[in-house]
Amino acid sequence: MIQDPFKPAKRVAGQRQDVWSIVNEAAAAYNQEHGAGSVVNMGQGFFGYNPPEFVLDAARDALGKVDCNQYSPTKGRPRLKKAIAEAYTPFFGRTINPDTEVTITTGANEGMLSAFMAFLEQGDEVIVFEPFFDQYISNIEMPGGVPVYVPLHPPPNGATQTTSAGEWTLDMAELEKAITDKTRMLVLNTPHNPIGKVFTRAELQAIGDLCVKHNIIILSDEVYDRLYYVPFTRAATLSPEIAKLTLTVGSGGKNFYCTGWRVGWLVGPEPLIKYVSAAHTRICYSSVSPLQEATAVAFEQAEAHGFWEESKKEMKGKMDRFNAIWDELGLPYSDPQGGYFVLVNLAKVKLPEDYEFPAHVASRPRDFKLSWFFIKELGIAAIPPTEFFTEGNAHIVEDWLRFAVCKEDEVLDKAKERLRGLKKYIQ
Amino acid sequence: MIQDPFKPAKRVAGQRQDVWSIVNEAAAAYNQEHGAGSVVNMGQGFFGYNPPEFVLDAARDALGKVDCNQYSPTKGRPRLKKAIAEAYTPFFGRTINPDTEVTITTGANEGMLSAFMAFLEQGDEVIVFEPFFDQYISNIEMPGGVPVYVPLHPPPNGATQTTSAGEWTLDMAELEKAITDKTRMLVLNTPHNPIGKVFTRAELQAIGDLCVKHNIIILSDEVYDRLYYVPFTRAATLSPEIAKLTLTVGSGGKNFYCTGWRVGWLVGPEPLIKYVSAAHTRICYSSVSPLQEATAVAFEQAEAHGFWEESKKEMKGKMDRFNAIWDELGLPYSDPQGGYFVLVNLAKVKLPEDYEFPAHVASRPRDFKLSWFFIKELGIAAIPPTEFFTEGNAHIVEDWLRFAVCKEDEVLDKAKERLRGLKKYIQ
Repeated sequence: MIQDPFKPAKRVAGQRQDVWSIVNEAAAAYNQEHGAGSVVNMGQGFFGYNPPEFVLDAARDALGKVDCNQYSPTKGRPRLKKAIAEAYTPFFGRTINPDTEVTITTGANEGMLSAFMAFLEQGDEVIVFEPFFDQYISNIEMPGGVPVYVPLHPPPNGATQTTSAGEWTLDMAELEKAITDKTRMLVLNTPHNPIGKVFTRAELQAIGDLCVKHNIIILSDEVYDRLYYVPFTRAATLSPEIAKLTLTVGSGGKNFYCTGWRVGWLVGPEPLIKYVSAAHTRICYSSVSPLQEATAVAFEQAEAHGFWEESKKEMKGKMDRFNAIWDELGLPYSDPQGGYFVLVNLAKVKLPEDYEFPAHVASRPRDFKLSWFFIKELGIAAIPPTEFFTEGNAHIVEDWLRFAVCKEDEVLDKAKERLRGLKKYIQ
Repeated sequence: MIQDPFKPAKRVAGQRQDVWSIVNEAAAAYNQEHGAGSVVNMGQGFFGYNPPEFVLDAARDALGKVDCNQYSPTKGRPRLKKAIAEAYTPFFGRTINPDTEVTITTGANEGMLSAFMAFLEQGDEVIVFEPFFDQYISNIEMPGGVPVYVPLHPPPNGATQTTSAGEWTLDMAELEKAITDKTRMLVLNTPHNPIGKVFTRAELQAIGDLCVKHNIIILSDEVYDRLYYVPFTRAATLSPEIAKLTLTVGSGGKNFYCTGWRVGWLVGPEPLIKYVSAAHTRICYSSVSPLQEATAVAFEQAEAHGFWEESKKEMKGKMDRFNAIWDELGLPYSDPQGGYFVLVNLAKVKLPEDYEFPAHVASRPRDFKLSWFFIKELGIAAIPPTEFFTEGNAHIVEDWLRFAVCKEDEVLDKAKERLRGLKKYIQ
């Protein structure tokens, strides 16, 4: 007989509080003290504004149609698969087959889980660059996979001067050394969260060639694929050999400002996509119908509305508008090449020696203390990035914080005003 | 080095075509021949009509709110958890805590997967009654669980006369014999799909007591919980000891006619729910925000709109309206006590001896041939239920087909008219 029916499976037993709840709870406590909505939340990467009106209209329309409220085909609605195939065909430089080379998932997150579930057996290894988006790790571990970490190295002078996010570098020898007989997949992320690095064609080519040499599937998380401020190369376009092994992950939530819609997709060769679809069917059965339909319409109409250009220009504007404060304060940051996050180096900020941190913060690296202090004393929430590193490499970013700039301009201005309160702590 | 990068993991390698695609493809072929929409699809359990207008209005409203389009908390939106706790508190006879005893999932399907992921280690056993909803099996197997089957036995005279769905019985000795040292969970489903049986209080009490005796978690799939035509007992209300081990699964899609919305939930004691939430976070991160909000409003307003009573009355009306054709044809069926499926016994229908079935149908039991014949010759899609049995027990239902009656009345009438074409095959 089972002795303890409440004993959880190992895969969910870890009870260390995650970074999102630590930051969100501290932010909520600030709001409780200072009034609802008073904290400036630049932590989690949700948008502070709505999707464009033509996308919302499409969602409202879909709600009026019987078939848009019922189950969609498990692989996704034909209209959405077609819209995605058409949108990506020019980027990929080959005609994408909507029926066999696109599969719709419940957000990019469940899409990546589906890919891991499709190919990993117990003990198979997956190479992940540090810093990593934290969900990758549990997604790899769920099917019994083992993450193998390779760090991205920060610019040597990142603590003293503002540098380009492109200066975070991968050591190819380190990467090659991480490959074993059990390496099954490699996770790429470009534009990169949290660094904001857009991998160069040369970097991607070197990584891709290595994967071809070792028969490794590339899972390329390109959810910020419309937000790049330097030339952007898609892994699947490097060579036919690399394309054969590449699954590209996309996100309607990131593309159209609706992270709560949970519409994502994978694009790739049929021999890979068919098993991702099979896994997705076993996980979620099908994905949300009316918002799949709305995302299809969003793709169909985006170009005509000038949305893609506008979206990129707007986000770059927010990035520059916000980062001006760091120049003003003389604090160095890693200038993003893509996405909507900026990493700021706060080595120069001296926290008061007698400042009291709660135990769950005091026990973590310095960035958690910075994050706590920023919420409590300045009313600004940001994410401590050591959460995206293994313990051995966490020291690399213990002086940095990650800010999300996908917020209304007034919110960014408010944040800047509050950040001026930091002056007295800068040494 | 990996020899074949395209080799799928075992969990997705099975390539036998599932019942849904066989039926849907045959139905699509009929439409191609006879014109779009010409098949009467009573196969999959999607609704042939929209959610009520007050629910759609709530969804449209939600789309206008910034926070309703962005990530929801991983455990679900507070408003929805509160609405569900309030709706179920009277049924459960105890105050449900919305923060600790309710968790929102991406449909009931991913909710059940989350429960299995939360508690099953490799080799742990889960008892499932036959017939079973087919997704249970892959959901159990994903985390390495092993389904152990216990059949429900049809009424002995089910082939010759119409009987109550309540006459499908569980042999308690068979159930007890199926329990081993590795039994970790048991899946209940009431009202039952596909049988339409509502388990009696006495049956549930016997099952529940056995689970308490052996420390087995009860996962009670009650997604049809508003559609019962005889008294309905919820497993979680039988005794405090049983409640302690019971997770109840619910579905907004089934409750409010929107199977494509993917909003489900689990209600249960905090020591169980917290790990289900943890698993859900690792699978989908969070669930669809605007439709969570709309489902919250749906619960808040349902009573005032008289929706629950109306919904039940309407579905019972559809059931009776449709089943009249079987009485007319002299074909026996299993009269449902709940839900929207009816199982009909077609032993008396003689298929032409020289009828040609495609290989993927010819190789399956007689119900697959009946299903194929019904689509091709009558233009009516229904589901062969042997798919919901293990091979050894499939013979139990090889003469039955499952029809979904959650369709417009005109559709039901059209189906009845077409079914009259069956007369010449009845012996």
